[in-house]
Amino acid sequence: MAEKNIGVGLLGLGVVAGQVAKVLIGKQAKLSTEAGANLVLRKIKCLPQDLDRPVAKELPKELLTTDEEEFFNDKSIDIVVEAIGGEHPAFEYHKRALSSGRHIVTSNKEVIAKHGIELLTLAQKNNVSVNYEASVGGGIPLIAPFKYDLVANELQGIYAIINGTTNYILTRMGREGLDFASVLKNAQELGYAEANPVNDIEGIDATYKLAILATLGFKARVRPEDIHHEGISRIRSQDFKYAHELGLTIKLLAIAKQNNGTVETRVHPVLIPADSFLGKVDGVYNAILVQGDLVGNVIFFGQGAGAKPTSSAVVSDIVDVARKMASGNKSTYQWKLNPAIKLKPIADIQTRYYIRLTVNDQPKVLSQISQVFGDNGISISSVIQKETDDTARTTEIVIMTHSAREKAMQQTLTELSQLDVVGEISNFIRVEDIKQ
Amino acid sequence: MAEKNIGVGLLGLGVVAGQVAKVLIGKQAKLSTEAGANLVLRKIKCLPQDLDRPVAKELPKELLTTDEEEFFNDKSIDIVVEAIGGEHPAFEYHKRALSSGRHIVTSNKEVIAKHGIELLTLAQKNNVSVNYEASVGGGIPLIAPFKYDLVANELQGIYAIINGTTNYILTRMGREGLDFASVLKNAQELGYAEANPVNDIEGIDATYKLAILATLGFKARVRPEDIHHEGISRIRSQDFKYAHELGLTIKLLAIAKQNNGTVETRVHPVLIPADSFLGKVDGVYNAILVQGDLVGNVIFFGQGAGAKPTSSAVVSDIVDVARKMASGNKSTYQWKLNPAIKLKPIADIQTRYYIRLTVNDQPKVLSQISQVFGDNGISISSVIQKETDDTARTTEIVIMTHSAREKAMQQTLTELSQLDVVGEISNFIRVEDIKQ
Repeated sequence: MAEKNIGVGLLGLGVVAGQVAKVLIGKQAKLSTEAGANLVLRKIKCLPQDLDRPVAKELPKELLTTDEEEFFNDKSIDIVVEAIGGEHPAFEYHKRALSSGRHIVTSNKEVIAKHGIELLTLAQKNNVSVNYEASVGGGIPLIAPFKYDLVANELQGIYAIINGTTNYILTRMGREGLDFASVLKNAQELGYAEANPVNDIEGIDATYKLAILATLGFKARVRPEDIHHEGISRIRSQDFKYAHELGLTIKLLAIAKQNNGTVETRVHPVLIPADSFLGKVDGVYNAILVQGDLVGNVIFFGQGAGAKPTSSAVVSDIVDVARKMASGNKSTYQWKLNPAIKLKPIADIQTRYYIRLTVNDQPKVLSQISQVFGDNGISISSVIQKETDDTARTTEIVIMTHSAREKAMQQTLTELSQLDVVGEISNFIRVEDIKQ
Repeated sequence: MAEKNIGVGLLGLGVVAGQVAKVLIGKQAKLSTEAGANLVLRKIKCLPQDLDRPVAKELPKELLTTDEEEFFNDKSIDIVVEAIGGEHPAFEYHKRALSSGRHIVTSNKEVIAKHGIELLTLAQKNNVSVNYEASVGGGIPLIAPFKYDLVANELQGIYAIINGTTNYILTRMGREGLDFASVLKNAQELGYAEANPVNDIEGIDATYKLAILATLGFKARVRPEDIHHEGISRIRSQDFKYAHELGLTIKLLAIAKQNNGTVETRVHPVLIPADSFLGKVDGVYNAILVQGDLVGNVIFFGQGAGAKPTSSAVVSDIVDVARKMASGNKSTYQWKLNPAIKLKPIADIQTRYYIRLTVNDQPKVLSQISQVFGDNGISISSVIQKETDDTARTTEIVIMTHSAREKAMQQTLTELSQLDVVGEISNFIRVEDIKQ
């Protein structure tokens, strides 16, 4: 059977790392057969407090260390698996591992999104690899399809539900008519949202994942901070009510589109048809729609988080590296950037818009409002007017526009807010037309 | 830039091959950058009649040859792309190409399903590779995810809509209440079904694709002839009517399941929930649901046929081979078969059943029928009785069973057909419960 030993060292002992350790030990024979070499878990570097966690008791004691030096000085470690998450010290660990000739396998979206290109360059210099399938979409195969299976295509669009927490919250708001705050609170109680949920609900987590996909898919250097992002906390139950009337639903989408060498990237709530594929992705599931000039639309769907699905991607990456080591193949893959690709500022995007306004219940209100849209060159496709509040003498109006430039829309919103008859611009949500 | 030349030779000039030729020429610079070598289309071996086809006029004349010897003697061809389809002479061409040290890229499901293991063994002996992403699911990434991204998993199930023609026919029957024959005729007129549709409608095409996926996914030698298959021609509009009443729909599924080292494989119509993911896959689209012990359910969705989607997979495979050649890596991947895996005979499967019977309209009919089920140890979950035909004094009964063994079900059907009160067993359809 397999003769060569290939050593794996694990950084971290959180839920993902603990699961990876259990899989490496429990499936050692199967994984070694797949790899064509004996795949051996050599060491786990954890924090002192991890030693008291249940998973630590399930693992052979001699594997565990809290000593970073002991870990990095272990010459029997060929592949370093980093599953501690966060930017620091993970980034420093990556650099140390690569500089000492170890391959990296990681589930860390933040480090890859922020420093991926630097790390891949460092890896190449040291004839080793960085594998990061687990950094986006949990166990859903995404990185390999982008690297291999779709490479003949010029990619045109990526439309992704890649944050389970926000999709869970929006699904429940839409189904149950609940407001954002109460669903968030319940999601936190159930463990679907973190105590500090800001990274998820404000779309920051999704920018990390989109940065990784867009960089790989469009060969453009897309950093998380290049991505316009808005969260879901301003979505109200009324917005779902109007959306349903229009046959639409609300999702937090991570969007990247390419047109004539210009790439736009953004993360924000969108209105999409309720009966579209992405519109029907409910709960904590993830779905990623990719458009290519040859392949058309392909969709990848599955659990985008969780210890087991994420360990599927991490361990498969480990096997891939080990297989290449065992067969003497080089394990390098570079992000080949195309310096000609430009990023489009958010002000230049074109889309349709939904605007919900509270206005005074007076004659000619609609004509004043329409005037502002017209002055900015935006044409209105439909208006819903409802629910006069007799006491306050206010009315809620929902306006749907035809396709317009974001800059003109923002100017319109500014001017609308200055009208005496407009009490409040209650919300504005972009409407995404996904070619199918 | 890229220095090394890598030559591609194309066998065939049908719709897929023609599209591949156009992509290789039209995207030569992009593909060469991806490959890290100059990717050059050297020769196209076609039939004399192909020379009159429009695509032949669009291609450089000097590339075309009808001479097999000229093609195989061209030492500048490193990668042979076979897109002629069918078993012969494609299989012989594969062997000749591999024996002379050329890599193979193919979209030919029949050759891979029937001879894949032999060809991969021959490839390994000659230090070359066989790539066949395009053989299943058109451009949908499937082979690479099975080889790489899901390798840490023990796969539990594959549930696939992998034949566009039958899915198109069933979708229209379900939506429009039409009968099979008229939809088939219309599908033939529209080009969605072939003049001789037997391979599609009888599920034979799907057995080729399932054989490829099951062999790869379960490491079992699954030949097309090992797969129990039934087509859709016996589905009637009444079956859809009853299915809809029960919240179900009818799909032709290719199913492979593994349990304790035993694999069952079958292609036949199934009843599944209408609002399930696979239940909602309409028209010519393909969707493949894969269940793994770690990853849970992942779904791959897209266009499963057509020149452009298929060329996406073929050309991406070519780039993959070229990349490995350019970097000096070995390009071999073996199907590692597990000789311990057993195949389960169809008689041993367990599922639920839908049976539609025409019976005499007499008292005690139901008790006689129930008796037969009971005698065979099958318990009935529900009965629908309707539409008495007063002239003929017959009634249609639909029976849904709890989970039962196929052998017992077949015995039940035999015994039912011998009852005097049973006019006809009009249909029987398996009901598939897909764990989600």
